[in-house]
Amino acid sequence: MKKIAVVLAGCGVYDGAEIHEATLTMLAISQQGAEYQCFAPDVKQAHVVNHLTGEEMPESRNVLVEAARIARGNIKPLSEYKASDFDAIVFPGGFGAAKNLCTFAFDGPDCSVNPDVEGAIRSTVVAEKPVGALCISPALITKVLGDVEVTIGQDAGTAAAIEKLGATHIATTHGEIVVDNKYKVVTTPCYMLDATISQIADGANNVVAKVLEMA
Amino acid sequence: MKKIAVVLAGCGVYDGAEIHEATLTMLAISQQGAEYQCFAPDVKQAHVVNHLTGEEMPESRNVLVEAARIARGNIKPLSEYKASDFDAIVFPGGFGAAKNLCTFAFDGPDCSVNPDVEGAIRSTVVAEKPVGALCISPALITKVLGDVEVTIGQDAGTAAAIEKLGATHIATTHGEIVVDNKYKVVTTPCYMLDATISQIADGANNVVAKVLEMA
Repeated sequence: MKKIAVVLAGCGVYDGAEIHEATLTMLAISQQGAEYQCFAPDVKQAHVVNHLTGEEMPESRNVLVEAARIARGNIKPLSEYKASDFDAIVFPGGFGAAKNLCTFAFDGPDCSVNPDVEGAIRSTVVAEKPVGALCISPALITKVLGDVEVTIGQDAGTAAAIEKLGATHIATTHGEIVVDNKYKVVTTPCYMLDATISQIADGANNVVAKVLEMA
Repeated sequence: MKKIAVVLAGCGVYDGAEIHEATLTMLAISQQGAEYQCFAPDVKQAHVVNHLTGEEMPESRNVLVEAARIARGNIKPLSEYKASDFDAIVFPGGFGAAKNLCTFAFDGPDCSVNPDVEGAIRSTVVAEKPVGALCISPALITKVLGDVEVTIGQDAGTAAAIEKLGATHIATTHGEIVVDNKYKVVTTPCYMLDATISQIADGANNVVAKVLEMA
């Protein structure tokens, strides 16, 4: 049975992993006959956002501890990830991917990347294993890899920022994927478009199917 | 288009709504051609659990604010729910259903029920509209309705506690539903069994299909 690592960035679209994208990635892996193991970096969240009001809360939360909510406790620190143990790695989206895994949401092309995240992406690519990325996560992948072909949907500003990092951006709509054969990177826009939850399931299914095919 | 209210009990299996059950209920509603609106009571969580260690954390969180993470901000206080605006109501599971919506996890058959939750269940039944309940939520439904036929899977202790409240408990396995025709209550065990995420999708799909058929 093929095994995919799923990297979570917290728990909630505005400050962590987007919950539908994360859950439906896990569902797609299970329904397609593979296994998953969740990981997250053991670091403080950039901030905590009240998801009812959109305002910042005067609290501090840990990315791994909050991501454990999505993983039902079955999650490991990303520092323990070894590419040799997995057939592929997938990054669901949510602002956490651009706030906690890297700082793209705050710093754009000048962002920095969490060292465990950078190590996980580089070691997977060096092992010639596929990397999936949903929603805003392709920005993170591009910051690490540079000249990769990706999609974040149709947002011109984000696409321009990613192209500054060296990517070629391909505009896509709901459920469509872009495949970079050089690095084996598979991306889809998900909630970077104004999508329904069914369309998120389509995107996650298509990324997982392609990643498993390339694994 | 039929419209289903989904009542969330927070965000995370050990102190709130079970995230997979909640997300996959929303997915099932969308994939079956209906719409959903999320609700949660605007109350303090019973407690906050670190989902990595299982230990209680010295924090205080609000059920509606945390549930908004699953709903991507699109959620209303349960006090605003009107049965006349919806075709059905569904309660995903997670310990939050037995800690925040009622106190079954702490008090067993002697539990109390949040008044907004009790009002939502009673007004839906009076309107002869169906009520779906996943995982441990049938305990909550039973505390309100009494002589209802439900399933929580196969856990003997929980089944006995529910029968003390007046229910008839039917043992089930993954994805199976129990239908009470008198009250139009549809239940399925989900993570009350040792289930995969695909089996949770099966249970959610079956509950939503039956609820829509009866609506």
